[in-house]
Amino acid sequence: MDTAEFRRRGKEMVDYIADYLENIEGRQVYPDVVPGYLRNLIPDAAPEHPEAYEEIVRDIERVIMPGVTHWQSPYFYAYFPTGSSYPAMLADMLSGAIGCIGFSWAASPACTELETVMLDWLGKMLNLPEEFLAGTEGQGGGVIQSTASEATLVALLAARAKILKRLQAENPGLAEPEILSKLVAYSSDQAHCSVERAGLIGGVKMKKIPSDTKFSVGGEALRKVIEEDKAAGLIPFYCCATLGTTPSCAFDNIMEIGPICNSENIWMHIDAAYAGSSFICPEFRHLLNGVEFADSFNFNPHKWLLINFDCSAMWVKKRSEIIGAFKMDPLYLQHDHQESGLVTDYRHWQIPLGRRFRSLKMWFVFRTYGLKGLQEYIRKHVSLAHEFESLVRQDKRFEICGDVVLGLVCFRLKGSNALNEKLLKAINNGRMIHMVPCYLADSFVLRFAVCGRTTESKHIQLAWENITEIGTEILQELQQ
Amino acid sequence: MDTAEFRRRGKEMVDYIADYLENIEGRQVYPDVVPGYLRNLIPDAAPEHPEAYEEIVRDIERVIMPGVTHWQSPYFYAYFPTGSSYPAMLADMLSGAIGCIGFSWAASPACTELETVMLDWLGKMLNLPEEFLAGTEGQGGGVIQSTASEATLVALLAARAKILKRLQAENPGLAEPEILSKLVAYSSDQAHCSVERAGLIGGVKMKKIPSDTKFSVGGEALRKVIEEDKAAGLIPFYCCATLGTTPSCAFDNIMEIGPICNSENIWMHIDAAYAGSSFICPEFRHLLNGVEFADSFNFNPHKWLLINFDCSAMWVKKRSEIIGAFKMDPLYLQHDHQESGLVTDYRHWQIPLGRRFRSLKMWFVFRTYGLKGLQEYIRKHVSLAHEFESLVRQDKRFEICGDVVLGLVCFRLKGSNALNEKLLKAINNGRMIHMVPCYLADSFVLRFAVCGRTTESKHIQLAWENITEIGTEILQELQQ
Repeated sequence: MDTAEFRRRGKEMVDYIADYLENIEGRQVYPDVVPGYLRNLIPDAAPEHPEAYEEIVRDIERVIMPGVTHWQSPYFYAYFPTGSSYPAMLADMLSGAIGCIGFSWAASPACTELETVMLDWLGKMLNLPEEFLAGTEGQGGGVIQSTASEATLVALLAARAKILKRLQAENPGLAEPEILSKLVAYSSDQAHCSVERAGLIGGVKMKKIPSDTKFSVGGEALRKVIEEDKAAGLIPFYCCATLGTTPSCAFDNIMEIGPICNSENIWMHIDAAYAGSSFICPEFRHLLNGVEFADSFNFNPHKWLLINFDCSAMWVKKRSEIIGAFKMDPLYLQHDHQESGLVTDYRHWQIPLGRRFRSLKMWFVFRTYGLKGLQEYIRKHVSLAHEFESLVRQDKRFEICGDVVLGLVCFRLKGSNALNEKLLKAINNGRMIHMVPCYLADSFVLRFAVCGRTTESKHIQLAWENITEIGTEILQELQQ
Repeated sequence: MDTAEFRRRGKEMVDYIADYLENIEGRQVYPDVVPGYLRNLIPDAAPEHPEAYEEIVRDIERVIMPGVTHWQSPYFYAYFPTGSSYPAMLADMLSGAIGCIGFSWAASPACTELETVMLDWLGKMLNLPEEFLAGTEGQGGGVIQSTASEATLVALLAARAKILKRLQAENPGLAEPEILSKLVAYSSDQAHCSVERAGLIGGVKMKKIPSDTKFSVGGEALRKVIEEDKAAGLIPFYCCATLGTTPSCAFDNIMEIGPICNSENIWMHIDAAYAGSSFICPEFRHLLNGVEFADSFNFNPHKWLLINFDCSAMWVKKRSEIIGAFKMDPLYLQHDHQESGLVTDYRHWQIPLGRRFRSLKMWFVFRTYGLKGLQEYIRKHVSLAHEFESLVRQDKRFEICGDVVLGLVCFRLKGSNALNEKLLKAINNGRMIHMVPCYLADSFVLRFAVCGRTTESKHIQLAWENITEIGTEILQELQQ
């Protein structure tokens, strides 16, 4: 395909994308296909010779779309939102065209520098403590990770390297495996599975701290486990607090946990993957109070801040601590400026070496929406969630589970888990809306997460109608 | 930005991209900026209110482009190539628009299924042993990782989980930390720094096996270290062989290493990040002979197969072994079909949870170029490298270092390291072409990697002219 053809095909693709998103409501949100559906629709090997582009485009509707779960549909209420907006897509096109790999400053200075400044911009939007910002003199700063899972892992590895270094300095005879076998990390029993995985990957114990009736971990629960572990000869070194848990969007009490971590020399990482975007609104910023005690903080603008995946923002107070966990410097990656204080080589901050020019997406989105526009977007989703909540509360057959703080509503039919499993299955089989469940204190609960960029009140009303119709049928069956 | 505006802006962006790539030769390949250049060009905080899109676009040339290292320029000969092609960019636009997160089959069946089939297509193009393919009945299969670094780490973690399981089954009293402290992994002393990092992250010893005069690790060198380690009570469990090392594109002897690993129960992972793309050509496929002994194999189509970053292809013979290292199954990620043999939940194969619809890029590129077109592309780069090699060989002041097998030529002025450091610095300061160095057997060497999609013979000739002119100047200075 030459440049002239790309001009034509690119414009056709822009129209296809615009049509897709403009008419997404008309598509069934969850597909009907069964496992293995796709293999039979295409050849079993790549073609020897080039195919016409028209053939490929025709196959998008024939092969791909029948198997797509439409995350951008206003009828999609599953998981958490994944960000999508036109300016982010435009920036991503540009990123693809530049096609640089920004592992070091020299590999493309703009790629590194825009990232550092965009993380400062975003940090200011969140009113993060100054220590987390890079500025021109700071010791902290931000980085784009691919996902929150990676941020959790990177923070754990940095904490592990830090404690190893400290303990070996204090006791020169102490062997690494001996220390590793005693290290213990903490997270809430409501934390995302990726936190447990980070412990597994890092080869350290990861203990789940029991959450309270609000699904939140407080200082007392943490202190109890720390005392027990220390008495048993273990070494607490890392705590991942969650702001906005995946099951119910609950908030750990970082105002209590933070000072404990600080006094015990435990690295506190905060995972606010979903909820973090809301902290740009002054009325939600209090949820982040206590971040001043953290060593690292992360959330996903690619979830709820209109930036397409991937863009997971992570800040640390001391970048030397994160770099120290990974630094490797072969000659082919060295460059003249690397020892300058102004230079960041992001390869030392992350698991992969390569990286796209992802900060362009932040730049385009922040400028196109402005802070006010982004705040409006967050507020609209929260208000839609409350609208749904009040519909649920008006129907005495249903109950709300947990507090509705942001865009997630957890609810269920009053009754057994089996009843609610049946309800969710029937709703998803109906294909009008799509949701996923969770367990809260052994109750099977339906999660209604406001996700779509174009979701409006009318969609919420239609979703509730759909849920209550199916609920009524199921309850009637039960009575018969 | 509404859909109507996106139609307009998207088409403008397509033209901008086409213009950029069409005229990239006119841009200086390496930028003149100094560290910190960008911060002063833009405000120090995000705007409160939306800005006009025109402002943002104007800033691409004012703020971004002056700091871009143009990886797609035909004057870029640094590192290794990073893939870029129009069909890949079109597919990526579509992927952004669909905006699904394919962590499980149910999260978007097309995203998972196309990936499995595309990895089968690509595996067939490479003539991989049947065991690595998923098919409908296979126990193996492929996955797209973000980078080769992640593939190396994932393979190491799978190997670690496998040996832990086996040793604990054999000796139920054996504690995990005790085993971990004895595990030892191997790679070449020429292996990429990410291999050493994988050992660091996984908390296991990683030993570098000395390479021979061709910078290749053979069976004898590996066997010697294994015997020593076993005698010392260590447990060898993982070996990362490299096909196409980063410094000089050397090849470990997997025909020798493979059987040793198999008989010693050592997981053999093959990292062919750059070279792997060439194996689609029958004349280069012999370089992959011995892959039949491997447990896992990885290369980066996003390097040399015209697919934009990120797209790192990894295959395993037994997918249960890779899944076993990571599997976590919270309710909110479960779905009806997950126990079916036909279903793959890729979240169990990787470090991050989220993932883009990246297989679309493979599908568009394979069909647009066809196998023949991709082979032609590889052959053109190899032939350009040989053209450069012969220019170097004709000039008695220079020497070639290592064999030129694919698209990388390592060379230097006959003389001291200081002389060659001076040469490279002058070349890069000249800004006409861009290269990075490496050390080979303590010699400072210049790496000339054919990278650009549009690089032609005339660019090679111009590059050589530039190098010899600067070389002559430096040698003359030296004589005076």
